[in-house]
Amino acid sequence: MSNFVYLNNKYVNFKDAKIHIEDRGFQFSDSVYEVIKVLSKKLLDIDFHISRLKYSTNELNFNVKINKLHLKNIFLRLVKKNKLSNGIVYLQITRGVQSREHAYKKNLKPNIIIYTAKKKFNLPNNNYRGYKAITYPDIRWGRPDIKTTSLLANILAASEANKKGAYETILFKGKKITEASHSNVWIIKNNKVITHPANKEILKGVTRTILIKIINSLGLKLIEKEFSLKELFKSDEVFITSSGSFVSPIIQIDKIKINKGKIGPITKNLALSYYNNII
Amino acid sequence: MSNFVYLNNKYVNFKDAKIHIEDRGFQFSDSVYEVIKVLSKKLLDIDFHISRLKYSTNELNFNVKINKLHLKNIFLRLVKKNKLSNGIVYLQITRGVQSREHAYKKNLKPNIIIYTAKKKFNLPNNNYRGYKAITYPDIRWGRPDIKTTSLLANILAASEANKKGAYETILFKGKKITEASHSNVWIIKNNKVITHPANKEILKGVTRTILIKIINSLGLKLIEKEFSLKELFKSDEVFITSSGSFVSPIIQIDKIKINKGKIGPITKNLALSYYNNII
Repeated sequence: MSNFVYLNNKYVNFKDAKIHIEDRGFQFSDSVYEVIKVLSKKLLDIDFHISRLKYSTNELNFNVKINKLHLKNIFLRLVKKNKLSNGIVYLQITRGVQSREHAYKKNLKPNIIIYTAKKKFNLPNNNYRGYKAITYPDIRWGRPDIKTTSLLANILAASEANKKGAYETILFKGKKITEASHSNVWIIKNNKVITHPANKEILKGVTRTILIKIINSLGLKLIEKEFSLKELFKSDEVFITSSGSFVSPIIQIDKIKINKGKIGPITKNLALSYYNNII
Repeated sequence: MSNFVYLNNKYVNFKDAKIHIEDRGFQFSDSVYEVIKVLSKKLLDIDFHISRLKYSTNELNFNVKINKLHLKNIFLRLVKKNKLSNGIVYLQITRGVQSREHAYKKNLKPNIIIYTAKKKFNLPNNNYRGYKAITYPDIRWGRPDIKTTSLLANILAASEANKKGAYETILFKGKKITEASHSNVWIIKNNKVITHPANKEILKGVTRTILIKIINSLGLKLIEKEFSLKELFKSDEVFITSSGSFVSPIIQIDKIKINKGKIGPITKNLALSYYNNII
């Protein structure tokens, strides 16, 4: 099947989608990205992704203007060209190509890469799954609030989960939970929903942002505060959110079962509300 | 002038040296590198670079065997093909190409990129220069001892120096100095040479390793210990070491002049001893 990649104004075949070795994304992880859900050929939560992309490129002082309509058109064109029904659009913008030196030059021309991939999501239907997670130290750099490709700490954490047959890795700094290797973490205790505040220690997830609106509209009590490893293990329910995972239950962490290893009712309700909100 | 790049067993023109967008080095900074000095067509300190490269690829569990002779032959061939007299050999090894997901698969085929660049070094001759530096928080990830391309924190620090007309950025964590954005930091106080121990908080520089032998052979007192911002500013002399900077004096940090803004005698002596040791 044909699979096209948008690469700097051209649509090229996937196998030909290459960038130069002196691209700063490649040599310094000087690049940012977004992953956008596609469900039944529809782009989800697009405004939030575009506004976070603007945040990331601004924080790193990239020489790029983000044009929402222009990007959205490319996304839709790729979804069509690649005959994608359910999956993701991946977008990566690098600072550009420069003779290798640490300090970046102004006015570099960014490289823009956009492509799609099929993906089966964990939706709250008959196949809705609860996942295992492990815990792992958060050794990421100091700005995980910017969605960059400086992800080596995340991939080591995620690979550790993979080795142990788990789906995700929940990160802790000292005794506090920050987030997970590719999602935000939430706990439920006594009907209260608790998650880490969206400060510079975590990535402000798009799914997280929308779920907060839903939680408030449902009249559930939401607390944005730091919580500890101990609180995590003693929660009534735990779930994660991300563009790849939607709202997914965590039913075991390390050796500890959460909610006796079963999907909790509030998690499932939130997943359903989120799903109903987007379709 | 022709400029060749070694790319996975082929020598290609620089402009054609490209890697696929799903290379994990590009998408996750899942890659390591080395920068090797070339002086009068000779490769310097090669054994140390190779052994550090082995350390980096082992720590990250790359599916690669590092063959010193094989790599050295490529380096020398490139130096000849590219007519390089003084400059650097840059080598980057990525984990390989994989459909994008955080956890890495075993047995990926690494991408190996090697090329050269001209560079004028700061050698202890009539043009020997003292540099300005700034200080900046160390917000790198938790494993700077591995020489990876997860360098976004380093490049933001280095770019800040560049903006302020300085050569380097000295990093501090709490009140302690760790190292600089692309070099190790040394201070001299009362004829004692002090530098941060080579633990997991800094990169164990190749120039650093050799200079330690030289300091010992000269009978100078060396102390490997953490030192504070305050000690840095009150030093008799400050210098940095790296493959790109050799032994370079720092004569001003932020607004503070070190050794009244002049190159110190011990620094110059160490630079000369290092230079005499390698030629």
